[in-house]
Amino acid sequence: MTIITKPNTNSEQIAIIQARVADFGLQTTVVRRSQNTVLCLIGDAKRLPDGVFSDLDFVEAVKFVSKPYKLVSREFQQEDTVVKVKGVPIGGKAIQIIAGPCSVETPEQMQASAEAVVAAGALFLRGGAFKPRTSPYTFQGHGEKGLEYLIEAASEYDLPVVTELMDVRDIDKFLKYGVDVIQIGTRNMQNFQLLKEVGRLDVPVILKRGMSATIKEWIMSAEYIAACGNTNIILAERGIRTFESAYRNVLDVSAIPFLKRETHLPVIVDPSHAGGQSWIVPALSHAAIAAGADGLLIESHPNPAQAWSDGEQALTPQELKTLMDELRIVARARGRDLGQSNVVQANAHRLKDLTKQQYAA
Amino acid sequence: MTIITKPNTNSEQIAIIQARVADFGLQTTVVRRSQNTVLCLIGDAKRLPDGVFSDLDFVEAVKFVSKPYKLVSREFQQEDTVVKVKGVPIGGKAIQIIAGPCSVETPEQMQASAEAVVAAGALFLRGGAFKPRTSPYTFQGHGEKGLEYLIEAASEYDLPVVTELMDVRDIDKFLKYGVDVIQIGTRNMQNFQLLKEVGRLDVPVILKRGMSATIKEWIMSAEYIAACGNTNIILAERGIRTFESAYRNVLDVSAIPFLKRETHLPVIVDPSHAGGQSWIVPALSHAAIAAGADGLLIESHPNPAQAWSDGEQALTPQELKTLMDELRIVARARGRDLGQSNVVQANAHRLKDLTKQQYAA
Amino acid sequence: MTIITKPNTNSEQIAIIQARVADFGLQTTVVRRSQNTVLCLIGDAKRLPDGVFSDLDFVEAVKFVSKPYKLVSREFQQEDTVVKVKGVPIGGKAIQIIAGPCSVETPEQMQASAEAVVAAGALFLRGGAFKPRTSPYTFQGHGEKGLEYLIEAASEYDLPVVTELMDVRDIDKFLKYGVDVIQIGTRNMQNFQLLKEVGRLDVPVILKRGMSATIKEWIMSAEYIAACGNTNIILAERGIRTFESAYRNVLDVSAIPFLKRETHLPVIVDPSHAGGQSWIVPALSHAAIAAGADGLLIESHPNPAQAWSDGEQALTPQELKTLMDELRIVARARGRDLGQSNVVQANAHRLKDLTKQQYAA
Amino acid sequence: MTIITKPNTNSEQIAIIQARVADFGLQTTVVRRSQNTVLCLIGDAKRLPDGVFSDLDFVEAVKFVSKPYKLVSREFQQEDTVVKVKGVPIGGKAIQIIAGPCSVETPEQMQASAEAVVAAGALFLRGGAFKPRTSPYTFQGHGEKGLEYLIEAASEYDLPVVTELMDVRDIDKFLKYGVDVIQIGTRNMQNFQLLKEVGRLDVPVILKRGMSATIKEWIMSAEYIAACGNTNIILAERGIRTFESAYRNVLDVSAIPFLKRETHLPVIVDPSHAGGQSWIVPALSHAAIAAGADGLLIESHPNPAQAWSDGEQALTPQELKTLMDELRIVARARGRDLGQSNVVQANAHRLKDLTKQQYAA
Repeated sequence: MTIITKPNTNSEQIAIIQARVADFGLQTTVVRRSQNTVLCLIGDAKRLPDGVFSDLDFVEAVKFVSKPYKLVSREFQQEDTVVKVKGVPIGGKAIQIIAGPCSVETPEQMQASAEAVVAAGALFLRGGAFKPRTSPYTFQGHGEKGLEYLIEAASEYDLPVVTELMDVRDIDKFLKYGVDVIQIGTRNMQNFQLLKEVGRLDVPVILKRGMSATIKEWIMSAEYIAACGNTNIILAERGIRTFESAYRNVLDVSAIPFLKRETHLPVIVDPSHAGGQSWIVPALSHAAIAAGADGLLIESHPNPAQAWSDGEQALTPQELKTLMDELRIVARARGRDLGQSNVVQANAHRLKDLTKQQYAA
Repeated sequence: MTIITKPNTNSEQIAIIQARVADFGLQTTVVRRSQNTVLCLIGDAKRLPDGVFSDLDFVEAVKFVSKPYKLVSREFQQEDTVVKVKGVPIGGKAIQIIAGPCSVETPEQMQASAEAVVAAGALFLRGGAFKPRTSPYTFQGHGEKGLEYLIEAASEYDLPVVTELMDVRDIDKFLKYGVDVIQIGTRNMQNFQLLKEVGRLDVPVILKRGMSATIKEWIMSAEYIAACGNTNIILAERGIRTFESAYRNVLDVSAIPFLKRETHLPVIVDPSHAGGQSWIVPALSHAAIAAGADGLLIESHPNPAQAWSDGEQALTPQELKTLMDELRIVARARGRDLGQSNVVQANAHRLKDLTKQQYAA
Repeated sequence: MTIITKPNTNSEQIAIIQARVADFGLQTTVVRRSQNTVLCLIGDAKRLPDGVFSDLDFVEAVKFVSKPYKLVSREFQQEDTVVKVKGVPIGGKAIQIIAGPCSVETPEQMQASAEAVVAAGALFLRGGAFKPRTSPYTFQGHGEKGLEYLIEAASEYDLPVVTELMDVRDIDKFLKYGVDVIQIGTRNMQNFQLLKEVGRLDVPVILKRGMSATIKEWIMSAEYIAACGNTNIILAERGIRTFESAYRNVLDVSAIPFLKRETHLPVIVDPSHAGGQSWIVPALSHAAIAAGADGLLIESHPNPAQAWSDGEQALTPQELKTLMDELRIVARARGRDLGQSNVVQANAHRLKDLTKQQYAA
Repeated sequence: MTIITKPNTNSEQIAIIQARVADFGLQTTVVRRSQNTVLCLIGDAKRLPDGVFSDLDFVEAVKFVSKPYKLVSREFQQEDTVVKVKGVPIGGKAIQIIAGPCSVETPEQMQASAEAVVAAGALFLRGGAFKPRTSPYTFQGHGEKGLEYLIEAASEYDLPVVTELMDVRDIDKFLKYGVDVIQIGTRNMQNFQLLKEVGRLDVPVILKRGMSATIKEWIMSAEYIAACGNTNIILAERGIRTFESAYRNVLDVSAIPFLKRETHLPVIVDPSHAGGQSWIVPALSHAAIAAGADGLLIESHPNPAQAWSDGEQALTPQELKTLMDELRIVARARGRDLGQSNVVQANAHRLKDLTKQQYAA
């Protein structure tokens, strides 16, 4: 059970609710949100008599949620959550493409990446500064320097940036550089301490699915973030681990409609990590959008053959542009819009001296 | 290595090729096809000197195929195979929808199923007469009687039929009733005796992927059929078995582009067995078509709640029609056509007394 | 619900039970066994009033079985089934090792294989005459000729033989050659027609687990065999398909105690297909016996490096003997016996001219 | 390639090696260990001429390691690593059992748990103070208070303790309370920041396998720890995620011999999380020991029915004792010893007033 207060409920009022619940041997988790406060009941809600809060005028509603996930469930909130990043919506009618390289390498590479993103009409730039690598002997990312290159490249076109956070101790750096969207990677989907910390921030979070996480575990991890107060959560399907080794992972396209039914959160797809090879990225992208995804997280690189990591799955600037053009048609066929035409146009105006020659694949 | 003869090469000429190959300690598998004969070399092709067949004018070409699958590989044949069933193409530009119930139950149910298929604008009727069931104590299908009901219902609208073959001893019945497309089910994907027997027939075959078959194993099973002479093969992805239990199986949407790249065979998708619940079928269908599938195998039933098997994943006639209308738009967005308008129209003319009242969901 | 008759119940009496059940709208599957007849009720047993069969003196007992599998379940039969093959028990206190090559190759190879089996103290000889191969272009087994070689080699030492059946049309050959135990391979675990046919025979059956079959599906396949009257069934775990590719399959050692709890059938393990490499076979063999397996199915070959198939996972005669000696100690530690000392001794007497030199690895 | 120095090599000497390597465009990772320093070459070792370090007398040896994991590989170190904890060896000939509850609940529960561990003859106490839980609404562990209870209960019998670390910020607490062995849980196997931090400590680490981590990824995570200087690493197999849902996970028994071959680290098994139900724990324990495991991590509880978490998989004190007695026999059959008799005896002397009555299951 969840108890939802009216806006501006104060601590004293929250305490009254908690005391009443405690009379029946129950506890609550308190989630303070900008619009209201939600108390999630821990324990058996049937112990509470009917109308136990009816005399408390600061209680807006009491909702019974049958699922183990409360705040992020569709039962709790009927309407879609639309996450706004610098005014650009993720979720709802619009579909957003987030593109950029696996690793932030050099200022020049990031500059070229940002230009390619803008040229293709995408609105978000991604790039990894802190890299989770299987081997301790491979490039681990530039760290703080990487954040600097990323932000610098994005700022010229006012592109919001997405980058991965791996360590609670790095949060201050992310805030200092003004990272727009924090990505929690597949290996940290159940790093509960990290989830709790980003739950306390005011920054949108992309939560990637664990390599072999069930849908339910994944939603529970989103609930961890929401239970700490941050409901600007975007779920990102990136392929699951199975017996099949013909591709890097198996894109679980069924997860898209399933999540949209179970939760009110936006759902995006990472076709690059799912497929692991650039030639398969367009087909997976089309499938994801057709199945109802709210966006894509695509790896692109000015020169994939020279990429410091994951080059084989990165699109060239030209491939990215071609894909975007095709996706616009598929999006329309499903009654959706790719990007926001006014922002795309404004960006294009700034893109003066970009020439195709810069991006020899 | 494969050696391709000119049309009308006779047995004596084949023997000459074999003898020459034998001189180098090698053997061949001989595949007689309507258009030509192909000899697949068994053993190390490097032992043969260059131009060893250049004096034999009945040898059309020699092709080296690097994959373990030869005849079905894209290396062997560049252009797409288009399987024609009663004049209706599967593969190429057209997308075909095969719909109908899991089990053939009664003449009335099959009649209503056929009408619903026609009303929706689909061109193929499916229905199971021989049913592979996990338990020996559940309905095992009507057998031959089921074939009769299926054919009878389909004949009124000239719909080609698709039905599953489980036992080599039933082939004569399938031929007697004129089954248009033989389906090899997921549990028989590596029933090599069955594959060899349908390889000797002149009837198109839908080969479903085994529950946890790798793509490579699956293509090798298609090769078994082709190596016996039947190249009218359609591959059907139907979801794979993974750790996720939120849906019946995980639709492996990446298999579609991968198969189209590796083989020249048409690829269709069964969203019903993949998803296991009717509400998820539309999203998976859209994803499949967007990813490049050549068709869908959909379970539909005049009254899913009363179905003898798999009712929870069957679409109602109205749901089937709505889905078809949406799919037509997605197909067009990808530059494809759903069905064949002239056939669809002809069918619609015959559909006189069909009323919605018959199909209360 | 299951209705168990007294011995020698006749058809008329069975019909009386069926008629009574039919009065309540229910049906039965009739299983005729040597010791009695069992009728498995299809449908809701709650419809039958209490004591509905109490006046029929040919009804021995009525047992309610809560599991979907009836005849093979531990609920139906408390005591362990011990399958006797030429007097040698599989199940119960004794542990049996079945060894021999993947494929029957030549009379000499089979002769040497039989000698190695006897020298190691194992009591069963295996060898494949009909081989399920992923590729149509690899050796498919000698077929009937292979059965002949196998039987010939085994007969000198009175070794019972185990060999795989893939096609219902080959059953007559298996009976003609007197195959002692029929193996149903992993790819045919849900070839229900084949299961039904071996269910009608009087020959013990080894039922291998499907590559990714759940335990429940596997037991249901055993139930198919039992429901046709043959309860001499031995379950063989051979590794399951997972994401891990360091070994051929993952031996599911938990299946052993789980099956022993759910069914009364003997459970054996195939460490060779599970591990896929000979060096890992001993460790897996020890684990299987320690976990409670009733036997092992081990691939061995007089000269693994020359084997026509699966040589990398075959033990040499010397490795087989060493392993048997170690296993005897582990078996004893778990209160079990490996083989039957009197039979082993008798075999050893016949083994005159066997010399180690014959088996250079 | 790895370059191993003589003991007491100083920074200046290390710098000489690095400079020489840099001349060929290569870099190194420097691992300072108590006995020596190891430099792991990053990049292509073939660029270095033969004997490039032969004039440096502080270079002990140069070893080429073909695997991506260097320091933990069997190629790098032939002999088994034996991790000593308060004088008790893990690895080598001895087999160690670590037992105790999933969660530290109360001082009394921990006291009873410690007594049960001693009564059974086990030498290590486990208990979770910081708990990774799927849901934010379930008990998350007592935190620091839990460490206190655990240490207090263990100290009476001088039992070394094992407990899980989830957050780099908790390391100081672990050091303050003198945790003997730090456990890295399955969800943090690729939490590389955490691995690096425990790599800098002088405390033995149990590294659990990720839920669906490949063996190779797992060993690479151990390499992360070793590359930071801590080579007191114990690998713990705890079951992998597959399609099978009859048990919590599938114990990958093949991992034991495989890891022993690839690495020199001790390997233990957690049969409780693998099986998920207490009745299956003994069979899995026997299998693990028979396959060569160096120890077990078993969940036990004075009263499983009342456990705050994972009660269904915990053994009662009596079940733990019975299992230990059986395991001693299996260990001996494989030429190993369970526990250390002198320590076990010393503990038993302290165990005065422990009576069976305290532990009603």
